[in-house]
Amino acid sequence: MRRARVVYQGAIHDVTPLDGKLRLASGRLINEEAVQWLPPFEPQTAFALGLNYADHASELAFNAPTEPLVFLKGPNTFVGHNGATERPDDVTFMHYECELAVVIGKVARNVKKEEAYEYIAGYTITNDYAFRDYLENYYRPNLRVKNRDYCTPIGPWFVDAEDIPDPMNLTLRTYVNGEVTQEGTTANMIFGIPELIEYLSSFMTLSVGDVILTGTPKGTVNVAVGDEVVTEIEGLGSLKNTITRELKSE
Amino acid sequence: MRRARVVYQGAIHDVTPLDGKLRLASGRLINEEAVQWLPPFEPQTAFALGLNYADHASELAFNAPTEPLVFLKGPNTFVGHNGATERPDDVTFMHYECELAVVIGKVARNVKKEEAYEYIAGYTITNDYAFRDYLENYYRPNLRVKNRDYCTPIGPWFVDAEDIPDPMNLTLRTYVNGEVTQEGTTANMIFGIPELIEYLSSFMTLSVGDVILTGTPKGTVNVAVGDEVVTEIEGLGSLKNTITRELKSE
Repeated sequence: MRRARVVYQGAIHDVTPLDGKLRLASGRLINEEAVQWLPPFEPQTAFALGLNYADHASELAFNAPTEPLVFLKGPNTFVGHNGATERPDDVTFMHYECELAVVIGKVARNVKKEEAYEYIAGYTITNDYAFRDYLENYYRPNLRVKNRDYCTPIGPWFVDAEDIPDPMNLTLRTYVNGEVTQEGTTANMIFGIPELIEYLSSFMTLSVGDVILTGTPKGTVNVAVGDEVVTEIEGLGSLKNTITRELKSE
Repeated sequence: MRRARVVYQGAIHDVTPLDGKLRLASGRLINEEAVQWLPPFEPQTAFALGLNYADHASELAFNAPTEPLVFLKGPNTFVGHNGATERPDDVTFMHYECELAVVIGKVARNVKKEEAYEYIAGYTITNDYAFRDYLENYYRPNLRVKNRDYCTPIGPWFVDAEDIPDPMNLTLRTYVNGEVTQEGTTANMIFGIPELIEYLSSFMTLSVGDVILTGTPKGTVNVAVGDEVVTEIEGLGSLKNTITRELKSE
């Protein structure tokens, strides 16, 4: 089962897919073109992993981490499917990052990795854009790299955990203007999903609706204003985003 | 005007102080001993500053930053007045950090420092404990340093902005078991409150209820199990916390 949150005729609806259309709770079928997509759920605390694929760490000339590198993202950063993300005028590098997002479904504290999957409600796709110009300062990643408004597309679907029997073996791909520019597999994570839940829950409580963005494989490249960026994960769908100019008030 | 949130006889109440007692909305006066204190509001996105007092940066042998060093804290970290914070068994350094917390009262985006005070609802005290053992890894500060459960006492009072005419000139003090161990003034912040609001709102939207923990002056020292730690800020009151052993399930 998968579901999304969309705005249709002035109201927010939970929808499920049916025959290429969207089914409202009332049973009515509507066309995708008639809606705006929101994030498929409201993320509570959002954790994101850095350098969690060895090929990506090596691409950035970093050593693979010996402990999960986790930072938090604020609620301002999320934007739905078909949304727009601004490229600031003054940056040289804006990289997409296709990432499997894991949504917590049950309060978790001191969970062992063997039981970790019991705490997962489902999965979705994120594109955790990085604005690399700002990376280097004593606190890393600098908020400006990872916490700008609407810099993290998420969705389109929230997919129930039971529909993804092997989340550690999914192909990830990113397309820029229709060309594949990134391809990897979740099998190459350094710290897998069970290890991440064990790690985080060893010193804090994970709550329902918390989300873990599990990192990106190699193949992140710079994107330009006007580019259409599609991040895709096997079994979860395709998440589209467009890069726009930085819009300033007049 | 100041207010707090407390639990009294099984319900959460907003209270104001009157004649050394707490006044419920009904007008009834109750004794402080009869309540448990909660954080005085529910923080939305919580920002925290590192090394924002030159004397503290120098104490830690760091250069003063040239840009605000900001990280996020999750909602799991907050705990009310008179609460307890665990000292993990395996740490060598657990430091308190008395910090002025600034609460946003109006949606803020691209705010100039000259107008920044218009966006502040009020102030409170925080004690942003740091578990320094875990500090050094590529992502700093490591989540384990700053995002453990209940590691950030906040309160007791939310104090309206109009009651604090000069927040950049307040004395901060910390007492460990009754002895003053930290003393400073908000006048010594490297990036002042208006600059922080300008900086953050230049690349993201600040929302009502967001809170900025503005950093700590020098004088942070290690605390032990059983210590009573009181952080105090001129005009805002005193926030008490007790250090307990790490409590594990049997």
